[in-house]
Amino acid sequence: MIRENLPTLVIASHNAGKIAEFERILSGWWRIQPQAGLGVTAIAETGLSFIENAILKARHACRETGYAALADDSGLVVPALDGAPGLHSARYSGGDDASNNALLLNNMRDLGGEDRAAFYIAVLVLMRGTEDPAPIVAEGRWYGHIAEAPRGDRGFGYDPLFVPFGENRHAAELSPEEKDRMSHRGIAVAQLLKHCGE
Amino acid sequence: MIRENLPTLVIASHNAGKIAEFERILSGWWRIQPQAGLGVTAIAETGLSFIENAILKARHACRETGYAALADDSGLVVPALDGAPGLHSARYSGGDDASNNALLLNNMRDLGGEDRAAFYIAVLVLMRGTEDPAPIVAEGRWYGHIAEAPRGDRGFGYDPLFVPFGENRHAAELSPEEKDRMSHRGIAVAQLLKHCGE
Repeated sequence: MIRENLPTLVIASHNAGKIAEFERILSGWWRIQPQAGLGVTAIAETGLSFIENAILKARHACRETGYAALADDSGLVVPALDGAPGLHSARYSGGDDASNNALLLNNMRDLGGEDRAAFYIAVLVLMRGTEDPAPIVAEGRWYGHIAEAPRGDRGFGYDPLFVPFGENRHAAELSPEEKDRMSHRGIAVAQLLKHCGE
Repeated sequence: MIRENLPTLVIASHNAGKIAEFERILSGWWRIQPQAGLGVTAIAETGLSFIENAILKARHACRETGYAALADDSGLVVPALDGAPGLHSARYSGGDDASNNALLLNNMRDLGGEDRAAFYIAVLVLMRGTEDPAPIVAEGRWYGHIAEAPRGDRGFGYDPLFVPFGENRHAAELSPEEKDRMSHRGIAVAQLLKHCGE
């Protein structure tokens, strides 16, 4: 069976949804192993940017397991808020997604027009070893704006407030398949596959 | 005159050839300033990968000047040599380009076929501030193999030994325009422009 010959790729995430997505997309090329199954625990994300956090996580998983590792880091950026929620997207308010959305709305209450522009970003890093000089970097950005009120009950994060460019619907009103096709993570994963094939 | 309104972009490099190239390509969108003219000196490139070194250099130039900054890092990677010359491409032998080429040939004397595969890589990082959560990252890879003897007198670095995929000529036999079209740096700059336009 050909899969026995595939190289191992550790997924440097504890998020079940992300692990399942990477497994579905990459399992023809790699033998996918979530890092938790190999005893790797999460590390502090002390980087100043998404790319630096993804590098930190991928290198940590490589070091702990000896295998190639894939990490991702993602969030929402509002340029008019100096990049917030940014690296702190998941813990912006200290509460759940609904609290994060409420805090974002409140912080943007005086902003209109172009100042409501925002983008989601996902950065992926695939590192073959702790000193791989040329890890594969893939990135996706999903541009849009922040609405004045939430709508929709799908997706997660800031999807109820995020209106993708060219759409009338909020991201939380899109089907999973539609979101996969246009989202930051969908773009990043497609770019990763393109680079893997080079 | 419209150029007065352009934002300033510091080029975090002391290489005159790279500065001229960035000036030529980016001057419609940014007011280009080489970092030396603003009193910024080079910093130690202590990263473990090209992307980390480019981030280090861009952030240093941002911190010292207060402007957005563009940095690049590049080199040649031979997977069969565990990634060497890699981050040390410019100082592989401690001597000049000819010594570096001679050392590479010697270190590969027992390698044939697929083990002579190599790629050039260029990574660009454009950072708007020291804590920009989402710097623009652009990358180009130029795949090929390392010949058994040098040929050509154009280009620089390992161009006399590097035979691009799909070419019979060595990189040092290409015209500057041909090299710009297919090289790692040409690909990275085109990708940077695409991202800037998003």
